[in-house]
Amino acid sequence: MGRVTERRRVVRIRDGAVSQRADTLVGEEPLEIRLNGRAIAITMRTPGDDFALAAGFLVSEGVLGRPEELARITYCAGAQGPDGSGNTYNVLDVRLADGVPLPDISLERNVYTTSSCGVCGKASLDAVRTTARWPLPLAGGPRLDPALLSELPDRLRAAQRVFDRTGGLHAAALFAADGRLLDVREDVGRHNAVDKVVGRALERGDLPLDDTILLVSGRASFELVQKAVMAGIPALAAVSAPSSLAVDLADESGLTLIGFLRGTSMNVYAGADRMALPIPATP
Amino acid sequence: MGRVTERRRVVRIRDGAVSQRADTLVGEEPLEIRLNGRAIAITMRTPGDDFALAAGFLVSEGVLGRPEELARITYCAGAQGPDGSGNTYNVLDVRLADGVPLPDISLERNVYTTSSCGVCGKASLDAVRTTARWPLPLAGGPRLDPALLSELPDRLRAAQRVFDRTGGLHAAALFAADGRLLDVREDVGRHNAVDKVVGRALERGDLPLDDTILLVSGRASFELVQKAVMAGIPALAAVSAPSSLAVDLADESGLTLIGFLRGTSMNVYAGADRMALPIPATP
Repeated sequence: MGRVTERRRVVRIRDGAVSQRADTLVGEEPLEIRLNGRAIAITMRTPGDDFALAAGFLVSEGVLGRPEELARITYCAGAQGPDGSGNTYNVLDVRLADGVPLPDISLERNVYTTSSCGVCGKASLDAVRTTARWPLPLAGGPRLDPALLSELPDRLRAAQRVFDRTGGLHAAALFAADGRLLDVREDVGRHNAVDKVVGRALERGDLPLDDTILLVSGRASFELVQKAVMAGIPALAAVSAPSSLAVDLADESGLTLIGFLRGTSMNVYAGADRMALPIPATP
Repeated sequence: MGRVTERRRVVRIRDGAVSQRADTLVGEEPLEIRLNGRAIAITMRTPGDDFALAAGFLVSEGVLGRPEELARITYCAGAQGPDGSGNTYNVLDVRLADGVPLPDISLERNVYTTSSCGVCGKASLDAVRTTARWPLPLAGGPRLDPALLSELPDRLRAAQRVFDRTGGLHAAALFAADGRLLDVREDVGRHNAVDKVVGRALERGDLPLDDTILLVSGRASFELVQKAVMAGIPALAAVSAPSSLAVDLADESGLTLIGFLRGTSMNVYAGADRMALPIPATP
């Protein structure tokens, strides 16, 4: 089984000085997710919290929303290493509870197509709207104070245990509206880190996450906004920039999207009505 | 058609002061790649260089290696917007030249499975080894001078035109062994930026890229090492950390993998024999 971190030998060069030593790297292994026995997704992920990753992925796809819809998750015993030895722990099977409909999920992650539209951003937005279980009314959800938001990146950073050793992975952190850290997960893939946070919340019966703030390292893509919306999270903050389609989806869904959250500076790209501040008149 | 950048209204908060203005965001749209009429991949990408992205993706998959193997690439005229108007330019079809074998590519990008192994890192490494067209002998390829490598991130940064306006996307740059910038592409997805660079090299008839260095923003994942190996690139440098599987694949393939390339510091994780430096004895 792969591990969260692994050791490798590295040649270090510092201002012309050369040395060798062992270095800690973040682990990366493929994970195949099966649904009632059929493969529906393969993702490269950091091993650990695999069941939560699978559950959170299925929340993003609109399959799961309540813990009782999930019968069980198991590693596939037949998935052995190349030398025939033991379980690779890289293949798992999710069984839905009786009566939960099997979705029509293609193998390709998180991208929606419709026959009428070919492929376009508009169709991607429509697909999330039609599958989202929990609306995000702008009048509802937490009131977001910029001073509180400013403190969150440092709290995320302090909770990133693997990053400290490897410098090499993404993180997603879930905060209560009062700034309390509820959960943090780390992974080579930012989307996996979010899936793990959401999957753990599903297991706790905490969905929809309607009074929380999700903070992610790096950028905010369409996919991350989609995952927040599907989990009923009203606010997504990113340390770096969002894409155009991420902003459009946040706007359509009623999600507050904050980018470039650095020190006491931030940009609010959508859902500014939730911010505790006077919005100036448009110049 | 989507654009490389788009304008959106943003609420800016700076030390308590609130203002509104228009902001430039990096564009993100889905792209469906068809091969001889059959959909094989969908990726969220920044519009632009789509044909190169598709060609480079097929180099990574072992389908293409020489320009004459590619008959033509066209946008699918039938892929219209939701209001029935015009082409979305988000669906394209790649036609292989007569006699070029159609691969067995699953819809899932860049992840390999074998029935004997289930899914594991070892199988992922084996799959690249059996499909790579060009070996990377450690005795061959460029001699890599740390002083020259140290200059590359600034050259990449200076060439990142879209980043300057949006702060929001990844880049891949191809350098000649003497440090000359040959090409740079930007995209919301790092893997797309690499595909675009490789696809443009294929179109020029420049594969294998056996005397070059590929520099990527951010981290080095398994997928990026795979793309470098499949294009015959002997050296991959990243500004941030590699994963364990990225190092293993570089090691097996004879690729020089450099991480944390910052100022005059860097770590060499694999293929250090190509570095122009005295390797100290293992302590």
